[in-house]
Amino acid sequence: MIHNDYYTQETHGPYEMYNLGDFQLEEGGIIPDCQLAYRTFGALNESKDNLIVIPTWFSGTSKDWEAYIGEDRALNPKKYFIVVINQIGNGLSSSPHNSPASISMNAFPHVRISDDVRAQYQLITEKYGVTEIALVVGGSMGAQQTYEWAVRYPEMVKRAAPIAGTAKNTDHDFLFTQTLMDAITSDPGFNEGNYTSHTDVAEGLKRHADIWAVMGLCPDFYNEEKWRLFGVNSVTEFTEEFLQPLFQAMDPNALLTMAWKWQRGDVSRMTNGNLKEALGRIKAKVFVMPIDEDMFFPPKDCEKEQKMISNSELRMIRSICGHFGLFGAEGAYYYDQIDAHLQDLLNEHVSEKQME
Amino acid sequence: MIHNDYYTQETHGPYEMYNLGDFQLEEGGIIPDCQLAYRTFGALNESKDNLIVIPTWFSGTSKDWEAYIGEDRALNPKKYFIVVINQIGNGLSSSPHNSPASISMNAFPHVRISDDVRAQYQLITEKYGVTEIALVVGGSMGAQQTYEWAVRYPEMVKRAAPIAGTAKNTDHDFLFTQTLMDAITSDPGFNEGNYTSHTDVAEGLKRHADIWAVMGLCPDFYNEEKWRLFGVNSVTEFTEEFLQPLFQAMDPNALLTMAWKWQRGDVSRMTNGNLKEALGRIKAKVFVMPIDEDMFFPPKDCEKEQKMISNSELRMIRSICGHFGLFGAEGAYYYDQIDAHLQDLLNEHVSEKQME
Repeated sequence: MIHNDYYTQETHGPYEMYNLGDFQLEEGGIIPDCQLAYRTFGALNESKDNLIVIPTWFSGTSKDWEAYIGEDRALNPKKYFIVVINQIGNGLSSSPHNSPASISMNAFPHVRISDDVRAQYQLITEKYGVTEIALVVGGSMGAQQTYEWAVRYPEMVKRAAPIAGTAKNTDHDFLFTQTLMDAITSDPGFNEGNYTSHTDVAEGLKRHADIWAVMGLCPDFYNEEKWRLFGVNSVTEFTEEFLQPLFQAMDPNALLTMAWKWQRGDVSRMTNGNLKEALGRIKAKVFVMPIDEDMFFPPKDCEKEQKMISNSELRMIRSICGHFGLFGAEGAYYYDQIDAHLQDLLNEHVSEKQME
Repeated sequence: MIHNDYYTQETHGPYEMYNLGDFQLEEGGIIPDCQLAYRTFGALNESKDNLIVIPTWFSGTSKDWEAYIGEDRALNPKKYFIVVINQIGNGLSSSPHNSPASISMNAFPHVRISDDVRAQYQLITEKYGVTEIALVVGGSMGAQQTYEWAVRYPEMVKRAAPIAGTAKNTDHDFLFTQTLMDAITSDPGFNEGNYTSHTDVAEGLKRHADIWAVMGLCPDFYNEEKWRLFGVNSVTEFTEEFLQPLFQAMDPNALLTMAWKWQRGDVSRMTNGNLKEALGRIKAKVFVMPIDEDMFFPPKDCEKEQKMISNSELRMIRSICGHFGLFGAEGAYYYDQIDAHLQDLLNEHVSEKQME
């Protein structure tokens, strides 16, 4: 267990902890007293049918969703009980740097998207006693979890909105994620995961950030100097004063835990590798929402999956920020698109047939 | 000077050497007895108007062009005198590993695209006494050199075909290239460029290859298992048995010399940064030939430049291999497209106006 100032409520806003007890992992091993950090907005109604679940993305936390939620938004806390749940390994929930010695640092076990979703299921059923979820929505790895939710608990999930992510990760995306991981593990300071401070791995985290600069945005983001949206005045400032410090504040083992999970996101694990069968299980109304300029969850890949989901629509998000569109740097231009689609989705009548 | 078996005629086919003498570089410094390795096909005709110049791409050599040239192709050695010139720093021409001590290894000076093109100009004017070039064609960094040729020597270049490359490198592409370079220089075995063998940098070269696996191909290349085109049976074989050994055979300083040059390719250096003015100088008929799935010289960027060239056409190349389409793994499907466009271009009448 090592200290890292980044993973605090000062940085990430308020959150509560839920103790799952000893949590069994799909790959074997347990996380003793597994903790989920979660943040709620609004309140559960009497009929317990107004729950919205939001899982987090790679390197992200519940903080990222503040801007998506508001009384003037589709994700309206006056109407819905919104629970943003930090994925395991993200630094707030149980993670390599904050776990007991037996599973600390490089001894932290492999976690899968399915583990996250089972953990989230345990939280919301045990703590709130709900049997249906009005909407699961998430971006990137949050989209992977959203798909996992809809396939694993089809009776429970009424609506799902995976943004900028896939149900089954592609080989190309796997290779991309590997370059992110190798940038970190190749730093001699990483010391096979047993560094004494994340700052020992500053160079590896820098290279990790620099690969994000290429794949996380897109050519036109730079052509049109859209880094200005991030409050910087040059490409160099964007990489050196935004991206690099962002990732250098994080825990290397946390990033690796999430990346390993991301690489293997695949709902067809529930159906012996048959993706069509897995997506065929979904009963929710699904809006598949790729970002048009996304370089590693490209619209084409998302659309292929959308076509395998019976009650679904493709709702394209426009963002010159590519995958990093999720950060919402474009402000209203971006959030208004998300809102419009989510509002349409929430307005969808969930038929008796689906409710069966 | 260190030995590397890769940079031999056994590996790269026959080539000759031309000694430029002491070659002055734009960034300062000279390469003493600067050598250009070049390979010729066909013969110069009496009117000396059948010359085709082909500069090489990043990490490539004259060998790569064998498959593009043939009596059944547009690049027909029975009709044209074709000279493929290896760029400075590519391991065959003057390069860090084969240069005299004063500029050996990490003492090798910075070379620019403009230096290459001036060196190539010296070779073909001094040795062959030509005053016009029927066609300059090149891929990737070869396209950068092609643009440089057309802008720098507008009276001389009658036709130009930049394939999968730009006249002015983009910021996004610069950042991508930087990740390739950092993968190499971060290897402790690199030793700031003064390794004793390129094998000392095997890990860095592996990571360099792995980034190529992401950006050099494209998502659908993997989705559709097109690595089979490269004679392998899995993604793992593609990376571990094709890409990694390919780059691990090369000299790290050579790759860095080329990458530095690639990052800064920009014809507008000749016009105080005014790209439109630079491209406006071109008198050649130009076919701009992006590859549709190219992730770092995307068609959009190429088309923008094409529109600034008065006598030009956009001729899109289809390849699911993305930038690596240049390797021609798709065989006739790829080469026939190249041929058709180059034949159209070579058939273009070069008007008196252009010839002035």
